Amino acid sequence: MLTLYGMSSSGNCYKPRLLLAKLGRPFRHVEVNAMDGSTHSPEFLALNPNGKVPLLQLEDGRILAESNAMLLYLAEGTSYLPDAGFERALVYQWMFFEQYSHEPYIAVLRALKKYPERAHQATPERVAQLLDGGHKALAVMEMQLSKTRFIAGDDYSVADIALYAYTQDAAFAGYDMTRFPHITAWLERVATHGGHVPMEWLPEGSAALSPGD
Amino acid sequence: MLTLYGMSSSGNCYKPRLLLAKLGRPFRHVEVNAMDGSTHSPEFLALNPNGKVPLLQLEDGRILAESNAMLLYLAEGTSYLPDAGFERALVYQWMFFEQYSHEPYIAVLRALKKYPERAHQATPERVAQLLDGGHKALAVMEMQLSKTRFIAGDDYSVADIALYAYTQDAAFAGYDMTRFPHITAWLERVATHGGHVPMEWLPEGSAALSPGD
Repeated sequence: MLTLYGMSSSGNCYKPRLLLAKLGRPFRHVEVNAMDGSTHSPEFLALNPNGKVPLLQLEDGRILAESNAMLLYLAEGTSYLPDAGFERALVYQWMFFEQYSHEPYIAVLRALKKYPERAHQATPERVAQLLDGGHKALAVMEMQLSKTRFIAGDDYSVADIALYAYTQDAAFAGYDMTRFPHITAWLERVATHGGHVPMEWLPEGSAALSPGD
Repeated sequence: MLTLYGMSSSGNCYKPRLLLAKLGRPFRHVEVNAMDGSTHSPEFLALNPNGKVPLLQLEDGRILAESNAMLLYLAEGTSYLPDAGFERALVYQWMFFEQYSHEPYIAVLRALKKYPERAHQATPERVAQLLDGGHKALAVMEMQLSKTRFIAGDDYSVADIALYAYTQDAAFAGYDMTRFPHITAWLERVATHGGHVPMEWLPEGSAALSPGD
């Protein structure tokens, strides 16, 4: 069975969990707290030298890092990833957009609000910069979603999963979502798409990895 | 013929140029200066609402953004991208690592040093933060390159192109490359791999897009 190491409250960790749930593919969740040093324990660094979750371990022990790499790998051959060609290229495009132009603003501002350990970083200058970058990313998504039902075209793909993970919490993070009606409608379309599970969902039989392990 | 909009001194823009040169695929280069506002002109924003280069235009006018999406799209079916499976997943992994854990430090510090327009951002705190993040990314690469000849395995792939673009300038940017002998050897392996062209190389017949166009 696949093993997914992740922090359940992290959007990046939610991405492969959501896809595996939609695919009906059984997996084991191992909770790793990125806030208490567990991702930089010697045990975890031996699995991922980059010290980040999520981390996917295959049945044979091989390891894959990077949430969006997992999505592309797990979706191969399913309806969530088009075959080779331009439609697939657009899925790649939106997934790199997510990691470069969206996550570093929206996920970071969400973390400053969500985790007390991060609150001291929320200086007015930092918050203003994160609001500005995130609103720009949302404006790019809004323009696309005024033209297509899903982000990379008219079909649901792993690019929607990648962008849903943190966009669903953008209002909580402090972004003004009243400016983005097409995103709001898309969030609802994603949340009602077949097999959807919320971020809180975990498979049965989850375990935890603590810094002392 | 393909058209590639890009700033010739940008590592992100170099990536698809290097792959196209290696593939022997003819293309037109259109110079767009990301420093003088050209990427935020109405003409350019109509092509890419995210206001970034590089931007790839196909023969039929369709547009693709994100350098690493271009690499994956253009490499499909060639020796630079493994077929579906775990080897391909590792290529994805290193390309997302590049955009999230490498480029935001190494490319940014390089830009502060290279472009006079950016020099005022080089405060001691910012430089220290960029050095720290970049050295961490380089340490992750060094560990991998102590085990494999190329970054995603023993074969050259588009993940090498993605990481070469800015790593080749890491010493110029201020990173201590004497700490990374395996990276230094890999830089040489990439630079001597068949069909390699340096960043300065441009195809014949290049044009330019200026803010007033």
